[in-house]
Amino acid sequence: MIPTIEWHGDVVRMIDQRKLPGRIEWFVCRGYRDVIRGIRGMVIRGAPAIGVAAGMGLALAGRGIRARSYKAFKKRFGEIADRMLEARPTAVNLRWAVERMLRLVEEMAGRPVAEIREALRRESEKILAEDIAVNRKMGRFGSKLVPDRSTVLTHCNAGSLATGGYGTALGVIRAACEAGKRVQVIADETRPWLQGLRLTAFELMQDHIPVTVIADNAAGSLMRAGRIDLVITGADRIAANGDVANKIGTYQVALLAKAHKIPFYVAAPVSTIDPRLSTGDEIPVEERSGREISRVGNREMGPPGVRAHNPVFDVTPAKYVAAIITEKGIVRPPYRRAIRVLLKD
Amino acid sequence: MIPTIEWHGDVVRMIDQRKLPGRIEWFVCRGYRDVIRGIRGMVIRGAPAIGVAAGMGLALAGRGIRARSYKAFKKRFGEIADRMLEARPTAVNLRWAVERMLRLVEEMAGRPVAEIREALRRESEKILAEDIAVNRKMGRFGSKLVPDRSTVLTHCNAGSLATGGYGTALGVIRAACEAGKRVQVIADETRPWLQGLRLTAFELMQDHIPVTVIADNAAGSLMRAGRIDLVITGADRIAANGDVANKIGTYQVALLAKAHKIPFYVAAPVSTIDPRLSTGDEIPVEERSGREISRVGNREMGPPGVRAHNPVFDVTPAKYVAAIITEKGIVRPPYRRAIRVLLKD
Repeated sequence: MIPTIEWHGDVVRMIDQRKLPGRIEWFVCRGYRDVIRGIRGMVIRGAPAIGVAAGMGLALAGRGIRARSYKAFKKRFGEIADRMLEARPTAVNLRWAVERMLRLVEEMAGRPVAEIREALRRESEKILAEDIAVNRKMGRFGSKLVPDRSTVLTHCNAGSLATGGYGTALGVIRAACEAGKRVQVIADETRPWLQGLRLTAFELMQDHIPVTVIADNAAGSLMRAGRIDLVITGADRIAANGDVANKIGTYQVALLAKAHKIPFYVAAPVSTIDPRLSTGDEIPVEERSGREISRVGNREMGPPGVRAHNPVFDVTPAKYVAAIITEKGIVRPPYRRAIRVLLKD
Repeated sequence: MIPTIEWHGDVVRMIDQRKLPGRIEWFVCRGYRDVIRGIRGMVIRGAPAIGVAAGMGLALAGRGIRARSYKAFKKRFGEIADRMLEARPTAVNLRWAVERMLRLVEEMAGRPVAEIREALRRESEKILAEDIAVNRKMGRFGSKLVPDRSTVLTHCNAGSLATGGYGTALGVIRAACEAGKRVQVIADETRPWLQGLRLTAFELMQDHIPVTVIADNAAGSLMRAGRIDLVITGADRIAANGDVANKIGTYQVALLAKAHKIPFYVAAPVSTIDPRLSTGDEIPVEERSGREISRVGNREMGPPGVRAHNPVFDVTPAKYVAAIITEKGIVRPPYRRAIRVLLKD
């Protein structure tokens, strides 16, 4: 698997996901501004991957800050951290990574700036390595939920490309396959950005895991025909009560799964949980340009001046979620208590 | 509104819907083979429009048959009718129109071939004119179901372009607007063929009816947010029990509407009802090439060799359908009896 994001000498480079699978191109970030641009512009996407990118972006920022005193460095670093936080609103992993980097600077109060710069870079490498390890743990827990000879529906891309590597939802599927289970995947193409067609199918084909892409419109009728055994998706933010924000369309997939008595699972690291939010109603849902809908494959498909509404996430109420798979184990309803216990450990 | 299909001198011409809304081009049919090609290739689509096209195609066929005797003419006409029937499997209006043309030939037993040719052409013109009239009637009945200041979700294109003119689902919306109601439309973009983005938005914008396109993935969350008051779609075939075959995705929209207590209506002419089929399970569902999913706007978006499954219709069980709007009135559950009564009239 190609790495989603990595340090390459003194720069950070990301696989440009806007161009996949047709072209494999690096997007090189020499400073934090490039990273913000990359996150905003969807060069890199997926909640955990955005977290990793934010960490690396702040390490780049640290290097670029000209301050000599700790105080001046910290002030400037805090300003840049605020800008990083605004790159995208829904995925909480971005905030989680930014706060982790801020804490590090806090902890190194009074130390030489050069030392802090080094530590920031190491911390960003640690975030990446931990993310991959976390996904593998999640995979081991989650694979128990995937029966042999089963067909899994997934929505969007919660794979290697959405994380530091291995993936959340696709990590669970990978782990089930590595455990010898015969699993096939149905991938929702996931309009408007086609993460399922472009990224999920690409990743799974590289790993020789059987995958079939469908229009998002076909999920319900496949469920009705008994052709889906379970659903696994990732998450961009999980509230304290277990409500899940994820890619637009997840809510309806979850509701359809419930109506067809098919278990709907969410795989996400603990860093995706935002205990400050009591319910999913408080999660900010990003709206992006309507042109992401009317322009398809760089071609304007709608009538001139067409109005399109493009919320890119939605919130799935906890009642539709059969279990949340984390690196600390599988969480089941009632979620409020279970999540509290999970975060205390 | 541009006509969907019309006689133009001695040829039949159709607006090429593969090219809309970017280019307005006629697809000219000089013989029935062109019409079959046009139906198969989606130059023209929409159950009632396909019916009109089949009628005109058989009129062209009649003109092309070289037979001099009635018997030879009828035999050849029957063979061509069989080929017309195979153009597309799901919409029953195709069969309905073909059978109407066959009946005409039957009724004119022994008459000069030239006279039959003339009658076939007139019959095909009548099918077109009747279709428009039927849509207007449907609109008048259906508009009562559309409240003032309401927001209607529609799926696919059941408009002027899917019919001889005016439309079924969009005809109801047009009639509500003509009656002075303030209606706004949310159009599912309707992957994979993007009928909602390309055709429904185009038609409604021409008529100055406010329309906003969404990704199919956003319908559920808009319903949950209380932003949809009712749903109206067309139909490709309706079984005797009220089960409705329509564009892929309709089933899940109907189920979602039910879950959110939003009425889901189907607008379709009586010719869409197939009383020979007891339930929707008997309706043949066409599968088209997976490339209609992986190629978007003429650009290959998926990884090379990606497998895609592309059923283009689905079946919505009658229990999700609040009412069926026809030119003979509004039909409500229990449908089996109501449909029997409707067809007897």
